[in-house]
Amino acid sequence: MQNLFLKNQKKKSRMTLCDIGNTHIHFAQGYKLFSSSKEDLRHLKLQDEIFYISVNNENEKALLSAYPKAQNIAQYFFLETDYVGLGIDRQMACLAVSHGVVVDAGSAITIDVMQNGKHLGGCILPGLTQYIHAYKASASVLEQPFKALATLETLPKDTKDAVSYGIISSVIACIQRVAQNQKIYLCGGDAKFLSRFLAHSICNERLVFDGMEIALKKIGVL
Amino acid sequence: MQNLFLKNQKKKSRMTLCDIGNTHIHFAQGYKLFSSSKEDLRHLKLQDEIFYISVNNENEKALLSAYPKAQNIAQYFFLETDYVGLGIDRQMACLAVSHGVVVDAGSAITIDVMQNGKHLGGCILPGLTQYIHAYKASASVLEQPFKALATLETLPKDTKDAVSYGIISSVIACIQRVAQNQKIYLCGGDAKFLSRFLAHSICNERLVFDGMEIALKKIGVL
Repeated sequence: MQNLFLKNQKKKSRMTLCDIGNTHIHFAQGYKLFSSSKEDLRHLKLQDEIFYISVNNENEKALLSAYPKAQNIAQYFFLETDYVGLGIDRQMACLAVSHGVVVDAGSAITIDVMQNGKHLGGCILPGLTQYIHAYKASASVLEQPFKALATLETLPKDTKDAVSYGIISSVIACIQRVAQNQKIYLCGGDAKFLSRFLAHSICNERLVFDGMEIALKKIGVL
Repeated sequence: MQNLFLKNQKKKSRMTLCDIGNTHIHFAQGYKLFSSSKEDLRHLKLQDEIFYISVNNENEKALLSAYPKAQNIAQYFFLETDYVGLGIDRQMACLAVSHGVVVDAGSAITIDVMQNGKHLGGCILPGLTQYIHAYKASASVLEQPFKALATLETLPKDTKDAVSYGIISSVIACIQRVAQNQKIYLCGGDAKFLSRFLAHSICNERLVFDGMEIALKKIGVL
């Protein structure tokens, strides 16, 4: 048993996991996490075996152009759900949580509910910094840069705060509404910021990669 | 006393109130409510005395071009608040509610808290149909037309529902979070739709005009 564990640990250390998003390309080498733009992929000079998932064709092509041996693992993988068109990154993050609510807060914010290993459904909000496009369309005076407010206890007293308060408060309240009393697991670029407002939430930036490792174990690669 | 009441009722019936927004221009003649684009203002052939408020210079110019005697009443009016830059339409709606939460759901959604006639602060969300611009910026697949879901009890099972559920659920949860146990008063084009999801809320499409009448009473016009 211990030998198998050591063998797996050794394998993990020679393996790079990759999560290709719409904006950035994220990597995990063991517990070392890093990101890249598609232009900088070559400069990473990755030597390990690469296993990836992707939600963006253009960024996927860029990865394969730099690392032709990289392997897409999506086809070896299954999440129990009735949801049609669930992004592979959402599926992987959900696979890592058998019971609770999974929030991936990146360029979009996805909120998914897992119960006994089954995905029950979920909803989507814009990413925190994408809201500006909706406010701009509402009224030009509402085109305000996002401000990372420290608290929601004080009601805003000017337009700039009123806009950022609206964004943060509505996202947090939506997550809490969906979660009710279940545990909340956060990943993605804005996970740390949002977790400040969510008592008893768990911030795990490695959630998608944890799911990928579970998938790789299931097909015997790990 | 009765004579004064009848005199005011008579005055009201010869008076048109006008709320100039960023998208539409709204009118009240007694309890008759109607809206117009700036291009159609002339065709309304309004004969009464017009009292107006405005948050849009271009639409205000159009009103004054069609009805040069129309009077802006903003300068005769005061709401107790520490908020800097509170739109005159928000102020008027708040003036009509001495205690509770005022939600104006139009091209933007404003949420304001009133306590004993004082405005304590408020926040702003994009209008329901403006969210699409934020989703489009998040990912092209999320550019989905807004769907007026009938319930929030069922978790979405596809992208289109997941987007509309995210919008409605986050707006409703934000209103409830700000309101806590206070009464909620809704006005604006999406008031009726949102009130379906807010138990014990009061939908009053005339809220801004109620505030304008209070202001006119204070300066002795009514």
